[in-house]
Amino acid sequence: MRNYNFSAGPSMLPLEVLKSVQEELLDFGGTGISVMEMSHRSKPYEAINAEAEQLLRELMNIPENYDVIFVQGGASTQFEAIPLNICKNRKADYVVTGNFANKSFKEAQKYTDAVCVASSKDKNYSYIPKLSKDMFRPDADYVHICYNNTIFGTRYTEAPDTGSVPLVADISSCILSQEIDVTKFGVLYAGAQKNVGPAGVTIVIVRKDLQNMCQDICPTMLKWSTQIAEHSLYNTPPAFSTYVAMKVFRHLKEIGGVKAMQKINEKKAKMLYDYIDSSSFYTNSVEKEYRSLMNVPFVSPSAELDAKFVSEAAKDGLLTLKGHRLVGGMRASIYNAMPIEGIEKLIAFMKKFEKENK
Amino acid sequence: MRNYNFSAGPSMLPLEVLKSVQEELLDFGGTGISVMEMSHRSKPYEAINAEAEQLLRELMNIPENYDVIFVQGGASTQFEAIPLNICKNRKADYVVTGNFANKSFKEAQKYTDAVCVASSKDKNYSYIPKLSKDMFRPDADYVHICYNNTIFGTRYTEAPDTGSVPLVADISSCILSQEIDVTKFGVLYAGAQKNVGPAGVTIVIVRKDLQNMCQDICPTMLKWSTQIAEHSLYNTPPAFSTYVAMKVFRHLKEIGGVKAMQKINEKKAKMLYDYIDSSSFYTNSVEKEYRSLMNVPFVSPSAELDAKFVSEAAKDGLLTLKGHRLVGGMRASIYNAMPIEGIEKLIAFMKKFEKENK
Repeated sequence: MRNYNFSAGPSMLPLEVLKSVQEELLDFGGTGISVMEMSHRSKPYEAINAEAEQLLRELMNIPENYDVIFVQGGASTQFEAIPLNICKNRKADYVVTGNFANKSFKEAQKYTDAVCVASSKDKNYSYIPKLSKDMFRPDADYVHICYNNTIFGTRYTEAPDTGSVPLVADISSCILSQEIDVTKFGVLYAGAQKNVGPAGVTIVIVRKDLQNMCQDICPTMLKWSTQIAEHSLYNTPPAFSTYVAMKVFRHLKEIGGVKAMQKINEKKAKMLYDYIDSSSFYTNSVEKEYRSLMNVPFVSPSAELDAKFVSEAAKDGLLTLKGHRLVGGMRASIYNAMPIEGIEKLIAFMKKFEKENK
Repeated sequence: MRNYNFSAGPSMLPLEVLKSVQEELLDFGGTGISVMEMSHRSKPYEAINAEAEQLLRELMNIPENYDVIFVQGGASTQFEAIPLNICKNRKADYVVTGNFANKSFKEAQKYTDAVCVASSKDKNYSYIPKLSKDMFRPDADYVHICYNNTIFGTRYTEAPDTGSVPLVADISSCILSQEIDVTKFGVLYAGAQKNVGPAGVTIVIVRKDLQNMCQDICPTMLKWSTQIAEHSLYNTPPAFSTYVAMKVFRHLKEIGGVKAMQKINEKKAKMLYDYIDSSSFYTNSVEKEYRSLMNVPFVSPSAELDAKFVSEAAKDGLLTLKGHRLVGGMRASIYNAMPIEGIEKLIAFMKKFEKENK
């Protein structure tokens, strides 16, 4: 039996992808070995690595003046890699819209003059602050934002205008879920474990003019140029994670790419928000225009009922609905791989629970 | 059909483990989801993570005054994490016995006064230099060695005596293949992709007195203490790799642990070295007492025959036998998961090839 998993990450993968991975697990493409056992210097793995990059370029429409690398360490490692790699004037402006945005801001302070130029902390991160280019220092090396805030359930609806200052964005929890104009960004990065594949591989997309200005103290393994020069094969890569990611990319292309995926995601999110808004039992406190397509936090009338909800939902095959401790209540993470049927089942459960506990 | 894969890494995994992973791929232990989809904060994953650590502690007999962490970035990341983490007098002594030993030495120079105290470069790394404790600076923060040299096919037969200076060893290509007295070491580290599991997870074993003396410039994600405090769950871990590693550990325990494994490895290596030594066609140029149990480089009478050997062997289901470009010829990596039958088949092929090409 397969359950619906509403985890904020790692999270659901498309069933078709899992089945295909399962089928190939002992013998990939007639090689007689598993991808887990394959030399990263072998032709079959080089083909997987190249196809992963090529498909991501197609899906996100990434121009030639950007490099794409698959690295280790998660977005958390990039929190430090960013100020270590982009170093001209040692100044960087941060917009703090949640927990991970704040973490990246704190880590950057170690390596650059990092300043918080805007924050939504005043209303417990329930909105995205209005940004305009005059808010940023013109000599800042970059402006950093977190495009979708997993814990608080907010998102930017478009890339803010930062003028001539390069825009850097953590897109861990929204990559490939909606169309993004890559040309508006200097750097985009994302951990795999939400919309891409199994945890262990991190995507970094870097415009060429932001490369090769590293601080001297930057570890070789955190330098983007190290992996760019070797097409992500400088050292042994997290090969199996990249392979599953490649299969997720193939699957996404087959169903119509990011544009088609966005439509489905908008439909799923609308179903859930509409039901919550129509109910007097459940509440989502995010300002409507900033509501995330991926992470939907909500509460019932009491903490006791929240706990009961999470526990009974799990028994019904609706897993990991507990909200983050910073917000409480419930959170339904409805990434790309969550099918419409999962949303329908969740809403049906919510209705039943409301009826029984009102 | 499953082939015999002699890759230096990533390399073979036990067939029993792969089959079990395949079986659980869509539904782990009745959870209704794959381990690839599982929140690292969930009870089932916390149990996997804890069991991996516990089994490794048992298998390697790791005392209580050592912490064990599962991190990302490969041994290459530890090359820099080591001088950044162990920092008292900013002096470190390195023994250079091959390519990776040299890489770790070079990277350390960025962060400490790293000195090469002994090298086997004079004979193309075909032996391990004799070491005695008077060769090391008494105020060095540590002595670094690479216990098994994957490319050149050499290994230490015992931990060198470094007196009061802590010994740090890269055991990427020999971990769990032979008994190692952990108490002789301050730090042991290894990438997973040879004897442990799929690439993407790296094991670091750190004695407690070598923690918490980090350089200020050390990135949070490279600090051992970051993951030690959180039992390797500070950020999203490479969960699937750790899960497969846990299953490899279980398998190793079932077949009798490291002691039993070492006997099998010694038998496999002896079969291959004995045949090479008895042949006038093949040569292994490593000094006998330092020959690796894991990596067996050898050459035929000419580079042309070497190329022919590698190509014909592959057709016969004996994969990835090409030697590293620094050594040439062939290399059979015969890690834990290579069965005796693989060695027998390789020797039979070598005999046939010798007969046809002498």
